[in-house]
Amino acid sequence: MGNTFGHLFRITTFGESHGGAVGVVIDGCPPQIEITPEEIQVELDRRRPGQSKITTPRKEADRCEILSGVFQGKTLGTPISIMVRNKDTRPQDYSEMATTYRPSHADATYDSKYGFRNYQGGGRSSARETIGRVAAGAIAKKILQQYAGVEIIGYVKRIQDIESVIDPDTVTLEQVESNIVRCPDAEAAQHMIDRIEQIRDQGDSIGGVVECVARRVPKGLGSPVFDKLEADLAKGVMSLPASKGFELGSGFAGTLLTGSQHNDEYYTDETGNWRTRTNRSGGTQGGITNGENIIIRAAFKPTATIRKAQNTVTNDGTATVLAARGRHDPCVLPRAVPMVEAMMALVLCDHLLRHHGQCRLFS
Amino acid sequence: MGNTFGHLFRITTFGESHGGAVGVVIDGCPPQIEITPEEIQVELDRRRPGQSKITTPRKEADRCEILSGVFQGKTLGTPISIMVRNKDTRPQDYSEMATTYRPSHADATYDSKYGFRNYQGGGRSSARETIGRVAAGAIAKKILQQYAGVEIIGYVKRIQDIESVIDPDTVTLEQVESNIVRCPDAEAAQHMIDRIEQIRDQGDSIGGVVECVARRVPKGLGSPVFDKLEADLAKGVMSLPASKGFELGSGFAGTLLTGSQHNDEYYTDETGNWRTRTNRSGGTQGGITNGENIIIRAAFKPTATIRKAQNTVTNDGTATVLAARGRHDPCVLPRAVPMVEAMMALVLCDHLLRHHGQCRLFS
Amino acid sequence: MGNTFGHLFRITTFGESHGGAVGVVIDGCPPQIEITPEEIQVELDRRRPGQSKITTPRKEADRCEILSGVFQGKTLGTPISIMVRNKDTRPQDYSEMATTYRPSHADATYDSKYGFRNYQGGGRSSARETIGRVAAGAIAKKILQQYAGVEIIGYVKRIQDIESVIDPDTVTLEQVESNIVRCPDAEAAQHMIDRIEQIRDQGDSIGGVVECVARRVPKGLGSPVFDKLEADLAKGVMSLPASKGFELGSGFAGTLLTGSQHNDEYYTDETGNWRTRTNRSGGTQGGITNGENIIIRAAFKPTATIRKAQNTVTNDGTATVLAARGRHDPCVLPRAVPMVEAMMALVLCDHLLRHHGQCRLFS
Amino acid sequence: MGNTFGHLFRITTFGESHGGAVGVVIDGCPPQIEITPEEIQVELDRRRPGQSKITTPRKEADRCEILSGVFQGKTLGTPISIMVRNKDTRPQDYSEMATTYRPSHADATYDSKYGFRNYQGGGRSSARETIGRVAAGAIAKKILQQYAGVEIIGYVKRIQDIESVIDPDTVTLEQVESNIVRCPDAEAAQHMIDRIEQIRDQGDSIGGVVECVARRVPKGLGSPVFDKLEADLAKGVMSLPASKGFELGSGFAGTLLTGSQHNDEYYTDETGNWRTRTNRSGGTQGGITNGENIIIRAAFKPTATIRKAQNTVTNDGTATVLAARGRHDPCVLPRAVPMVEAMMALVLCDHLLRHHGQCRLFS
Repeated sequence: MGNTFGHLFRITTFGESHGGAVGVVIDGCPPQIEITPEEIQVELDRRRPGQSKITTPRKEADRCEILSGVFQGKTLGTPISIMVRNKDTRPQDYSEMATTYRPSHADATYDSKYGFRNYQGGGRSSARETIGRVAAGAIAKKILQQYAGVEIIGYVKRIQDIESVIDPDTVTLEQVESNIVRCPDAEAAQHMIDRIEQIRDQGDSIGGVVECVARRVPKGLGSPVFDKLEADLAKGVMSLPASKGFELGSGFAGTLLTGSQHNDEYYTDETGNWRTRTNRSGGTQGGITNGENIIIRAAFKPTATIRKAQNTVTNDGTATVLAARGRHDPCVLPRAVPMVEAMMALVLCDHLLRHHGQCRLFS
Repeated sequence: MGNTFGHLFRITTFGESHGGAVGVVIDGCPPQIEITPEEIQVELDRRRPGQSKITTPRKEADRCEILSGVFQGKTLGTPISIMVRNKDTRPQDYSEMATTYRPSHADATYDSKYGFRNYQGGGRSSARETIGRVAAGAIAKKILQQYAGVEIIGYVKRIQDIESVIDPDTVTLEQVESNIVRCPDAEAAQHMIDRIEQIRDQGDSIGGVVECVARRVPKGLGSPVFDKLEADLAKGVMSLPASKGFELGSGFAGTLLTGSQHNDEYYTDETGNWRTRTNRSGGTQGGITNGENIIIRAAFKPTATIRKAQNTVTNDGTATVLAARGRHDPCVLPRAVPMVEAMMALVLCDHLLRHHGQCRLFS
Repeated sequence: MGNTFGHLFRITTFGESHGGAVGVVIDGCPPQIEITPEEIQVELDRRRPGQSKITTPRKEADRCEILSGVFQGKTLGTPISIMVRNKDTRPQDYSEMATTYRPSHADATYDSKYGFRNYQGGGRSSARETIGRVAAGAIAKKILQQYAGVEIIGYVKRIQDIESVIDPDTVTLEQVESNIVRCPDAEAAQHMIDRIEQIRDQGDSIGGVVECVARRVPKGLGSPVFDKLEADLAKGVMSLPASKGFELGSGFAGTLLTGSQHNDEYYTDETGNWRTRTNRSGGTQGGITNGENIIIRAAFKPTATIRKAQNTVTNDGTATVLAARGRHDPCVLPRAVPMVEAMMALVLCDHLLRHHGQCRLFS
Repeated sequence: MGNTFGHLFRITTFGESHGGAVGVVIDGCPPQIEITPEEIQVELDRRRPGQSKITTPRKEADRCEILSGVFQGKTLGTPISIMVRNKDTRPQDYSEMATTYRPSHADATYDSKYGFRNYQGGGRSSARETIGRVAAGAIAKKILQQYAGVEIIGYVKRIQDIESVIDPDTVTLEQVESNIVRCPDAEAAQHMIDRIEQIRDQGDSIGGVVECVARRVPKGLGSPVFDKLEADLAKGVMSLPASKGFELGSGFAGTLLTGSQHNDEYYTDETGNWRTRTNRSGGTQGGITNGENIIIRAAFKPTATIRKAQNTVTNDGTATVLAARGRHDPCVLPRAVPMVEAMMALVLCDHLLRHHGQCRLFS
């Protein structure tokens, strides 16, 4: 229990990293949305391993299949089930994992909670679990785009201490996808790629910050007090593997300002709508969207799996030393970008439906 | 919709800042827990306005009444309803608010969403809404304490740029309550108090960071993948008024480390239990508690209400200038401490019950 | 946990029969609905004890107070909390109940589940719990009426073996309220009243069937497959105290027909809408409303509390004999009518909002 | 939205009758339960078409595949996804259905709600949707059996007016499965089979009543007031295709008795436990199990699909006449038995986990 997200646009993901399949059931999707497996595949391809020299070289095609909920290329309003088969497991790669707890992985805590786990890979705690989220996010994005032209664009804002300069109000998907690290600041991007390769060659790993913006979001979305938009966004982001922090708008840095510096003054624009001159709020006030761009940031820790030797214990308490073999991401950030976008799309789509109902969105 | 939090230990809060009452219904509380209004009042008194010279001078006694769910001093296992009456409203203080949107407040977004709002104060977006959370948190704390000796201690970690030095592993409630700013680092505390008074006298406001630790939490709590413990903590914290950021363990700073620096190595302690030597994870791995201290941080923006004049608009789009009158907190941090503690207690208690069921916690 | 009903129009009830108060929090109510305590009181007065010679003579005024969510006579879109104070308990009346299990009451099962109960009356299993439902139902009725002129009318269809003849398509509230048994068939009503008085004088009790119709319900409400309209109606009705059965449309009797006798043939009416010539379906097909009248029936068992002596046991297992003292309903049916109406209104309103969203119902 | 059932043992079903697959995701299943596809298949085979001469002659193997949540033959505590592929569609059989509304089917209401439907068969309103329920029910049954030896046995109680005599306290699965109509009263069973064949040959259909008993259920399950055990059972049963009524214990017939006749007197058995001498309550009091057998009945209408010609309309309002071709069940009752059992198992398992938590059921 805990594998369902959303209230009206509601997804349930399933699947371990090895054995069978991973996937998602989307319940509450409005009817008559045109969607193809190819559109979903575009997002899955941004997430999948082996896409560049700075991600894990594991080759997984991750081809999705739509099992239900779509007929003649359009959604039915019924549950959409999407599945991606796992490749054949290679248990020999994972024999050590049956007994040895990898530091800062979830092996030990899963054993503690369930008394049993699929030790062929990370099981349910693997980032592979996010395939279902990204697939569902592709549909959510389409609904948002179709309803109000909403654009959701994520990018790598920082890798370790390499900060980029990006304008969330104007950044484009093309800029993001123009390099393999998904940082639309070309100069910073090159530094990031160099750093990741250097760290990888050392058998180590690094983390960083993903920023994500949603533009053209209608006013009025969010359900105070517990389902404030930023609360649901925080939950979505902090449920992603390796996330350690979440910010909206000014975030932690905003605490250094005074109220008179931080407040967003209102004005009336040429169309008669109220707007704010600045956007330290990050697109919501009191948990409800104010029509300005929604800007969030997510901190991802350095990948836990490293080739460097580490002290640890086995499940019977014996001290041992572990050095990861196999193929791993030295930095999850480039692949985390579509995950953060997906969570933002899912939250926005859910609140859009809360506002409008499942079936009357476009009428 | 959106005023319920938790899955098995589930609270629903109600109430605007003016008119009638604020309160909470707690559904799913285990039976036979001893609880008195006085114990709840202790926490409410830490939250209430007028408690010191650096909070708003508004005097509100905020006396709670238990309406249901408790019999002969013990919980029944049925819904516990707790109510605090609002004091008489003074509409004349708020007439301007009926039409003028306060910058970085939720007046405009509530109007946008609902087309109507209680303009006598912040209505539902007022921090007064948190009374129900803090009351429920008092009961959650008691259950956690009784079940496993869990201690939850929050404190002000930083005010604007005044950083304190506090050891979350040893800090005590007494130390926290030893000064009015709730910062257990005495020297930093004095700087903070001075800064708050100075800012207040300028008619401005400031923010900062609350840190909160939970100690002696059993291993195994948290429900991946969406209801990971940190995801629910993030949602709880980011649903508090004025929160802009959330971190667990190493948080954003952890992104500057490499994996070999960041990973928490395991060892076996004298009782045969696995432990981690460091705690950059902040008490969870893969969304499940690992028995180490849970450490979170919450960023709170500077209070939106300031006496300084600001540009804004009215609900008919007319430009105007607003300078708050009345009595306001120059800094919400001291009063936010019990709110963050409450959210942490509610999340932990919910996951404790998911693990053990409502009725068999103590059997 | 288990005291919340509904998904978008969501109520949480609280309160035991004695001590404190009973009430409800309604979350998700659309904004700008005009509602007064008096309108709610009308429904509560139909439910309250002491309203006629065939209900319990206990006098309880059951005056409701709206604590939140309404401002200047209109809903805010925020949680509406409604409370009714319990009268002073008279513990001496209930001392025997602390230890003796009343046959076919919930004393024993509550003890079994919670290990503890409020023995001053039925506690949470008392029909007094339905006050919150009826209060919330009053608001739901108003929304439905305002949105589409929906009328919900319940009545006593049968008392024991006294069957009435009533046309659900034309019956009026005035007819229902024209006699104290709430049976709009005047001749049957008199027989029912006589029977109830006779049974009451014998120290015994009787049950019967309530029928309830909803007219002018829009097509398209209901969320297959689990939240089919009839599934939610069944849950609502079967959660009422003393209910033992639920039917929609043809119900159990429909199983005696063949398909060709039972099917509702379609035709096109003068406005071009599809309709059904008969209504054995009872207003839904596949869990979705078809625009025909929704007709349900609920079976209520004879009141468990009787003056006749019965064998039972105490909580320590000792055999004993119990004869109820005090004031009790010889037949719950007349007071159950507003409860069934309330559950139907709550279900319909919830599904109306699922279809249209909370805030755009009237725009 | 509406395709999830249960709170802690929570299932989400997906799939239309044609195209892709049908299936279920089970979230919250306790870990370390041994389960094989073969065990699930046993239940699916009781549900599948083509199993006897009185069911539809459509041949569907309905082989299930477990996609996730099971490792080395045991549950992981993570979501269990089970899928059954649909056979190749034969669109030519269904061309008429694209435009013509079948009487008492959900074609018209789905069109009304979603504006679009999969007209190749019943889509989501097909009984094929129950495959996921029955698969999940197989696991729920196993948990209940393993936890407390709970037995759940359903059977056909009545077909049209052919009533059987069956003792719910002693009936066995073997007796139920001893004939193709699943009525353990051999003489009545033969009458039922004859009647079904006769009606089938007339191109018509019939309905009836399924009764289902759960034995050895622990005391204390059920979550008043809305999630009373009978309320959740009613919802489960009334969400099944073709169901029109639900009863617990004495049901509608109980309304003919007086309280003194209906009440279940308590006694203390040889082991010191309180029991009831009769069981008109049907195994619950106040919504909580009392340890007696839980007995429910479900009314199923005659199958809507018949070969006899019926008047209807097309989706553009044109009057037409429809006579079903293809292969259909003349009576759903024999195949409904495992469906009712599954819903009862799911409800009981959910409430068992609410009581005990997901992970500590067997510790």
